[in-house]
Amino acid sequence: MRIFVALLILFFSSIAFAQDKQDAAQIRKLFDEALERGESYEMLRYLTKNIGGRLSGSPQAAAAVEWSRQQMKAYGFDTVYLQPVMVPHWVRGKKEIGRVVNSKKLGTVSMNVVALGNSVGTGAKGVVGEVVEVQDFQELAKLGRAGVAGKIVFFNRPMDPKLMDTFRAYSGASNQRGAGPSEAAKYGAIGVVVRSLSSFNDDVPHTGGTRYALNVPKIPAVAISTNGANQLSALLEDDKALNFYFETHAQMLDDVLSYNVVGEIKGTEHPEEIIVVGGHLDSWDLSEGAHDDGAGCVQSIEVLRLIQAIGYKPKRTIRAVMFMNEENGLMGGRKYAEIAEELNENHIAALESDRGGFLPIGFGITGTKAQQDKLLSWQPLFTPYGIHQLKRGGGGADISPLRTQDVPTIGYLPDSQRYFKYHHTGIDNFEVVNQRELELGAAAMASMIYLIDKYGL
Amino acid sequence: MRIFVALLILFFSSIAFAQDKQDAAQIRKLFDEALERGESYEMLRYLTKNIGGRLSGSPQAAAAVEWSRQQMKAYGFDTVYLQPVMVPHWVRGKKEIGRVVNSKKLGTVSMNVVALGNSVGTGAKGVVGEVVEVQDFQELAKLGRAGVAGKIVFFNRPMDPKLMDTFRAYSGASNQRGAGPSEAAKYGAIGVVVRSLSSFNDDVPHTGGTRYALNVPKIPAVAISTNGANQLSALLEDDKALNFYFETHAQMLDDVLSYNVVGEIKGTEHPEEIIVVGGHLDSWDLSEGAHDDGAGCVQSIEVLRLIQAIGYKPKRTIRAVMFMNEENGLMGGRKYAEIAEELNENHIAALESDRGGFLPIGFGITGTKAQQDKLLSWQPLFTPYGIHQLKRGGGGADISPLRTQDVPTIGYLPDSQRYFKYHHTGIDNFEVVNQRELELGAAAMASMIYLIDKYGL
Repeated sequence: MRIFVALLILFFSSIAFAQDKQDAAQIRKLFDEALERGESYEMLRYLTKNIGGRLSGSPQAAAAVEWSRQQMKAYGFDTVYLQPVMVPHWVRGKKEIGRVVNSKKLGTVSMNVVALGNSVGTGAKGVVGEVVEVQDFQELAKLGRAGVAGKIVFFNRPMDPKLMDTFRAYSGASNQRGAGPSEAAKYGAIGVVVRSLSSFNDDVPHTGGTRYALNVPKIPAVAISTNGANQLSALLEDDKALNFYFETHAQMLDDVLSYNVVGEIKGTEHPEEIIVVGGHLDSWDLSEGAHDDGAGCVQSIEVLRLIQAIGYKPKRTIRAVMFMNEENGLMGGRKYAEIAEELNENHIAALESDRGGFLPIGFGITGTKAQQDKLLSWQPLFTPYGIHQLKRGGGGADISPLRTQDVPTIGYLPDSQRYFKYHHTGIDNFEVVNQRELELGAAAMASMIYLIDKYGL
Repeated sequence: MRIFVALLILFFSSIAFAQDKQDAAQIRKLFDEALERGESYEMLRYLTKNIGGRLSGSPQAAAAVEWSRQQMKAYGFDTVYLQPVMVPHWVRGKKEIGRVVNSKKLGTVSMNVVALGNSVGTGAKGVVGEVVEVQDFQELAKLGRAGVAGKIVFFNRPMDPKLMDTFRAYSGASNQRGAGPSEAAKYGAIGVVVRSLSSFNDDVPHTGGTRYALNVPKIPAVAISTNGANQLSALLEDDKALNFYFETHAQMLDDVLSYNVVGEIKGTEHPEEIIVVGGHLDSWDLSEGAHDDGAGCVQSIEVLRLIQAIGYKPKRTIRAVMFMNEENGLMGGRKYAEIAEELNENHIAALESDRGGFLPIGFGITGTKAQQDKLLSWQPLFTPYGIHQLKRGGGGADISPLRTQDVPTIGYLPDSQRYFKYHHTGIDNFEVVNQRELELGAAAMASMIYLIDKYGL
């Protein structure tokens, strides 16, 4: 009996070992293909250089939809189609103006500002007022209407540089941009200046969406670079009567018809089981949107191409989704989940790449304990590629609406140290993406999709 | 008795646990200091922007010596001194010229070439000849004198893109540059063109040292970009009579007096035990030498500053060494080891940073099994900072001469994916170094030095 059990264990562990070896070999093939003949980088070159920044509702967003549709068609995926979705159409208008008006020390000081996405414009008259600097909403509330009404509120809380995960640092500061304008307006502020959400002290302002609350006046809002914020703060220290002027020409126009773009390879055994891999096709208007999120889009298309290229026939349906409007509405992500629910589609997992085309270091999963354990058990297959952080928790904005249908969501994690130098700036261009890092990311994602396809989740 | 043993185990493991906690806290302090107030980046700005490229024997190399001496003095290290060393003095002279002379398809084709370091110049008459393309020395030997004499040898073996460790890919191709010219000369070649040692297909040529063998004619040699190499190879395919012309004005002048720069903090308990941390101060002349190896120099100085800043008093002597002449002679590294031996100094470890200012991922150690095991046992203290590869094997060119004295050598390992885009090119400038990555590297190195100081090796 003991011998029988021992043989049985030996038998199953040798099967497991052979499977591991087979998986390791397939994953090696995916990486080899990506490193020798990967196409993410050339796709990204087209999307950034020939199309460029592609804010929802813009002609470039329409071009990006058509390009990704054609690209996936050209790769011969089984099905390629569009999902119509209405999206907000915000336009920046002509270049913003910002300046300190009456510094005792320096007189007039020009400052590079950018309007926050979705914000109302000041028009040509601009807005001018005393500046009140706060670190957070508590401080704002303490000042109350008496301290804030008729003034410009300057939110100046930095991202915590000590956090290794810069996305945590971002989360710790981003409510200033997202909710700051409406919070300030509650107390009668006439405008808002926000310190850029950056991990670095430099002269580059970062835009990004703000969300106006209902039943609160919509006041104009701009972001200022971190160096600018430091200078403004220093000037305010001994000059409480300092006035700031800014002028923005932003406008929210009528909603526009746009699309998610979907391409899929049909599963051979369980075509009804769907695995999603995606990024968002829209980007801010200040740059080419290379890291955010051109990278995630081309990597998602490349995942399907890699799987085809190594001759693997997925058992389940693998679907690349280019979501529209992540930046200022999330209408694409919501629409996708809505349709999935209507059609009663069976999504077994969704993976998003929206943290830039940097060095792959891990994946994070939100799901049941069993789903998390399963994904974590694959760690040894990723270790040879420097991917050392398979962890619990994670996902992505566009796939988050699928959580209400209990779909496990997985976030692809590239290293985060450099991301907030480029995020939402004018310098997030093709040139700041490294080819090997980008292609390695696609290979990492393809490997994860391969394992989910083979073993379920 | 059992209870006694159990208590004993509990006692010692609680000591170990308390120590781990104390170490974790000290390392956290080093990282916090580096991330909040690190000075590597501003040091690097000075070294690259105000001094620039600093090839051995150049005025800029002299400036770099004086700058690093002053910088370490200004930080108040206990001792700062120079170690005189004679170094080769190679100069590039005026910009090189390279062209395909008589392509059947394209006629004359200009190609951007750079002379290899230490190579002889062609002078104004240049060198022109038929081109014979080879992948390696075996192929060259097969062609023999009959196939090579009077011709220009074109070494075109690429770095293997599939290797995750790009330094392995570099090692697999670098003999073409280091030994190629002399190998070709043995068979009567009149010149050499080498494919740039790059992980990327682009238009940027990479220089680097060549070593002429004794008793073989010194023939001129240039590097060509990877795109250039691909084009040249394609043209050669149906055009065996293709001639290539190149002109270089390089010269090897008389040796020059230069210096290693040493700064140290004296140990409080074992001042006679020395721990070295270093980089090399010289760089190639085509760029500012930011990653190679400005980064390693400023990080090494920063290690001592960080240790001071958190108020840690090392038991042993910590010594930052800026080695001179790594790029084309290693005279500084040799001199340092020679002096150490003469003075009978007791080096307990040496750590080098010479793989760029990229994201820290690990350390590699060459030494006894016990020394390796000890270092590897510290892995948990590095894991919170994404440093996941403490491994056997490694070191650095400048500290390698210390191996004859059985000093364990440790190589600092930043991620290697981007390094061979910049290495030895004209684009290795300050702008391609990321501040957080650079400062994190200094913190990682300081943490390693702290542990070696505390526990020995």
